[in-house]
Amino acid sequence: MLFSYLGPRGTFTQAALATLEPNEEAHVPAVDVPAALAMVRAGEVDYAVVPIENSIEGGVNATLDTLSHGPSLWITAEILVPVTFVLAAASERSLDSVRRIATHPHAWAQCRGWMSEHLGEVIHVPATSTAAGAKHVASGDSEVDAVLCSAMSAQQYGLTVLADGVGDNPDAVTRFICVGVAGGPLPEQTGADKTTLQVQLPSDESGALLSMLEQFAVRGVNLSRIESRPLGDSLGRYAFSIDCEGHILDERVQAALIGLHRTCPSVRFLGSYPRADGRKAQLRPGTADQDFASARDWIGQILASTRED
Amino acid sequence: MLFSYLGPRGTFTQAALATLEPNEEAHVPAVDVPAALAMVRAGEVDYAVVPIENSIEGGVNATLDTLSHGPSLWITAEILVPVTFVLAAASERSLDSVRRIATHPHAWAQCRGWMSEHLGEVIHVPATSTAAGAKHVASGDSEVDAVLCSAMSAQQYGLTVLADGVGDNPDAVTRFICVGVAGGPLPEQTGADKTTLQVQLPSDESGALLSMLEQFAVRGVNLSRIESRPLGDSLGRYAFSIDCEGHILDERVQAALIGLHRTCPSVRFLGSYPRADGRKAQLRPGTADQDFASARDWIGQILASTRED
Amino acid sequence: MLFSYLGPRGTFTQAALATLEPNEEAHVPAVDVPAALAMVRAGEVDYAVVPIENSIEGGVNATLDTLSHGPSLWITAEILVPVTFVLAAASERSLDSVRRIATHPHAWAQCRGWMSEHLGEVIHVPATSTAAGAKHVASGDSEVDAVLCSAMSAQQYGLTVLADGVGDNPDAVTRFICVGVAGGPLPEQTGADKTTLQVQLPSDESGALLSMLEQFAVRGVNLSRIESRPLGDSLGRYAFSIDCEGHILDERVQAALIGLHRTCPSVRFLGSYPRADGRKAQLRPGTADQDFASARDWIGQILASTRED
Amino acid sequence: MLFSYLGPRGTFTQAALATLEPNEEAHVPAVDVPAALAMVRAGEVDYAVVPIENSIEGGVNATLDTLSHGPSLWITAEILVPVTFVLAAASERSLDSVRRIATHPHAWAQCRGWMSEHLGEVIHVPATSTAAGAKHVASGDSEVDAVLCSAMSAQQYGLTVLADGVGDNPDAVTRFICVGVAGGPLPEQTGADKTTLQVQLPSDESGALLSMLEQFAVRGVNLSRIESRPLGDSLGRYAFSIDCEGHILDERVQAALIGLHRTCPSVRFLGSYPRADGRKAQLRPGTADQDFASARDWIGQILASTRED
Repeated sequence: MLFSYLGPRGTFTQAALATLEPNEEAHVPAVDVPAALAMVRAGEVDYAVVPIENSIEGGVNATLDTLSHGPSLWITAEILVPVTFVLAAASERSLDSVRRIATHPHAWAQCRGWMSEHLGEVIHVPATSTAAGAKHVASGDSEVDAVLCSAMSAQQYGLTVLADGVGDNPDAVTRFICVGVAGGPLPEQTGADKTTLQVQLPSDESGALLSMLEQFAVRGVNLSRIESRPLGDSLGRYAFSIDCEGHILDERVQAALIGLHRTCPSVRFLGSYPRADGRKAQLRPGTADQDFASARDWIGQILASTRED
Repeated sequence: MLFSYLGPRGTFTQAALATLEPNEEAHVPAVDVPAALAMVRAGEVDYAVVPIENSIEGGVNATLDTLSHGPSLWITAEILVPVTFVLAAASERSLDSVRRIATHPHAWAQCRGWMSEHLGEVIHVPATSTAAGAKHVASGDSEVDAVLCSAMSAQQYGLTVLADGVGDNPDAVTRFICVGVAGGPLPEQTGADKTTLQVQLPSDESGALLSMLEQFAVRGVNLSRIESRPLGDSLGRYAFSIDCEGHILDERVQAALIGLHRTCPSVRFLGSYPRADGRKAQLRPGTADQDFASARDWIGQILASTRED
Repeated sequence: MLFSYLGPRGTFTQAALATLEPNEEAHVPAVDVPAALAMVRAGEVDYAVVPIENSIEGGVNATLDTLSHGPSLWITAEILVPVTFVLAAASERSLDSVRRIATHPHAWAQCRGWMSEHLGEVIHVPATSTAAGAKHVASGDSEVDAVLCSAMSAQQYGLTVLADGVGDNPDAVTRFICVGVAGGPLPEQTGADKTTLQVQLPSDESGALLSMLEQFAVRGVNLSRIESRPLGDSLGRYAFSIDCEGHILDERVQAALIGLHRTCPSVRFLGSYPRADGRKAQLRPGTADQDFASARDWIGQILASTRED
Repeated sequence: MLFSYLGPRGTFTQAALATLEPNEEAHVPAVDVPAALAMVRAGEVDYAVVPIENSIEGGVNATLDTLSHGPSLWITAEILVPVTFVLAAASERSLDSVRRIATHPHAWAQCRGWMSEHLGEVIHVPATSTAAGAKHVASGDSEVDAVLCSAMSAQQYGLTVLADGVGDNPDAVTRFICVGVAGGPLPEQTGADKTTLQVQLPSDESGALLSMLEQFAVRGVNLSRIESRPLGDSLGRYAFSIDCEGHILDERVQAALIGLHRTCPSVRFLGSYPRADGRKAQLRPGTADQDFASARDWIGQILASTRED
């Protein structure tokens, strides 16, 4: 089984992938998110692992948009990876001597407070990923003194870690998803599941978002994420990328999906899969599977009782 | 086939019944609404015809409450009867000579304006029904000069009509229902149907009425009548008597019923039947039977596409 | 100060009135509810006490309809009276010897279970009120053996109580209101108040009831009673009689009233007054007076901060 | 008056700014959006012009996040700029001869279809902005043949336009905003206004988003944009960036703001300003200023009518 991922080697995405498939031989780096997902669609790999959301930066648009266009893909798992960095150099050196740091701009932004506290005046040498920064430092180029990268990257490039746990927000976390082709095996219900959808609203109806949310609320389905993405044809027209609690095999989720399908011009099912945090859904009264079954039975009995004249 | 009705002979209820079954030999008068419905439950008659709502007086509590307690009954038809009266006497006489008028207090109230315009000073001789007033006048008792009753009553008791079309509100109408045992023949879908329900709310939830109404709204089911009735155990606890548009065989109505059954402590189905006014339901987008069917198909296809590992 | 009430002497209504004004010289009986309220409008009395709701029979239509038509009246107090009866006779006698019982049909219905348990076979002699039944028994007419009436009635007519606490539902209670002219003194806020309204819905809007309820919900105002009453012009057109929690001087109630006034063709304010049960409103977060005041201050500060170019 | 903008010279942002202030001496380029807004906060410029939303890429996170943290800023205007490109070179040349094209990756993505139709095989030379690509081409570096940039850029760098109106989606548009310090002049009401808000939801309440939207709906205030942004402290906690129709001086907008302020932990007002498209708000019945005023008058009259005992 092969997995593409947002490369190069040593990215946080690869760290996420390693929790699913430790064997690095199964890891196929891709230059960007669309490329990683395209490899799944083309059948070159079985799954792709890509970031979907960062607790500081928000949704990853490239992931959201690539999932919602082109042949259907299903999310089969999510992985949460705490985003802390190491400061690493080609060889042991004092923090005081570090002046030029290679890293991705996001990493730079997330470590600014730590650097102003622990280092002297530093200069940012932008890199296209934290892993690329690590590679640069490992190359021995005297233009860079150190890199802010993942622990995995430092190890892969044989760097010396000068400081670890670096980052201004200790709770920063990125959520990654594992994505396969639609129609692949559907992860089992666990009672702690998520379902991801892409829903387009009727464009001519004010209050359309409210009506859409009521389709969830009336079946007691909570949302854990909602993001608007432009449809791309004109300003003010959106689709919504949504994670809701529950599994497509849960009655309440199916009922909500039916309501959405009836009333929205487009609904795309993007997978049901276990929550990484394992938190069970708190069902509101009347929303368990047996509540739906018993309600349908009741109607069935009414109809069955009817006798012809 | 026998029909009980709210008697005695000649009431507006009998006039309603006559539109269903002209043969008076099939008409069995009952002393009050509970008695008429009890005859159905006891199998003494096939159907009962009773008033359920008057455009001026509102819901008929005896009907609402008797339907919602005891063995289940189903409404199979509704009949609208314009409520206008005739002024009738034992023999021809001038309007000027009419002083003492027998009638039911409701009829008296609804003709007050007409009487002050067309008659001199008049005195009300209360009767237990307009038909009973007609019988009284027909008996020749010199204590009463005339009666305000239905045209049918006047005819049945051989009275002379002094004026017809009497009534202050020319649009006054009473709605009657024909009621059989639950499990009898279910009237066919016509596209212009009503479904009657009795729904009890969860008592501990503020906003319970709002939530209940959303179960209808989210499936595009309109209400044409809603009335609260006390549960009887303490003040502030209610059930709601509801007429909604559509037939239990309509998908959108079934979906609303399932939602109610899941979330309300008690839902009683009281029948689906053609509207007397024949007005077709205006379906909102996404609420036709095929919209539900196509949404379920879509989910079926998603689930069917899943292959095992 | 004079009070009209639904007479005759000895009714439960007078018992309710006596809790407000013990001096019977201030009590003016009226033949029916419209008459009692008309005396207030005519200035013949200061206040009327009439029933508005019974835990078994539901709303009192005559009260609801008279309040909502004609010159405005304000409810200034509510009184809860447990509805239990005494069985009383002209003189001491055994329960076994009681055969013919005078009383109002409602009272008869509410004591049926008790009678079948404690008495032999009995016959109902209908009376226009329980007090009228008491008067009849006191007259010594040998056609009636006893009466089911209020304890007050039995005492007023000098009857002997054979049994008290009679009634099938020990929690049965009737709610009475004290009504004065609009613009009279407004009862003070107590934190445990009710506001009564009559609201007509826009007729052409499906979902109008839902929208109306949202005007309350969005300000955290709970409803304790809602009843539909026909507008009287045609079937299917209703106004709603509503009790909501809170006082017109509470910000959240005013905000709901403003929302109703903006969106409904007619809203009638029928008074704010202390709840008889003294239960304090449980305010939801963000609905206290200071929440409204602080929100307005915030907007005021935004606008005040603006400087001209 | 000085304006910072997302530079360098010749960006679409400067084109947007030029519609407000044609004199280029008042234009102060900034390296990124946070820097442009920081110059306003520091008082170095009067206003900043930055992109907020692109019809294809969606919201500009740097803008949304910088507006919602730090000292308050107000949006005072919006500008819509169609995003079409020119293909430009240092001197006249045939399309056939163009092989290496410098431009920003977004521009490259938006012109892919056009290039495959009009050019031979081309290579992307990434630039940090389209303007930077123009500068590169103007420098005469033989590594690049042409640039995809704005018409303004081509002109500023003295380039020759080989093709204009380039772009796969002819309706692509970017929305820019002009931002000043909070408390500056508030743009006048025009009847075609927008108000921008940042709203944080109560974190512990499922259905919080629904409740928040109802605060708008119940006052008839439409939303034209809603985007979630992470709060940054943990996954699953969001604030919403919202554009609603109307001006803070409109009663319905104020009422919605009061409702939000009462029920949400944080609401930030980010300005009321005329819509660039000039489309007047379609007011629903009961939501005009005079509807609010007349409702408040009604309550005022009720309270004024009260007389003391």
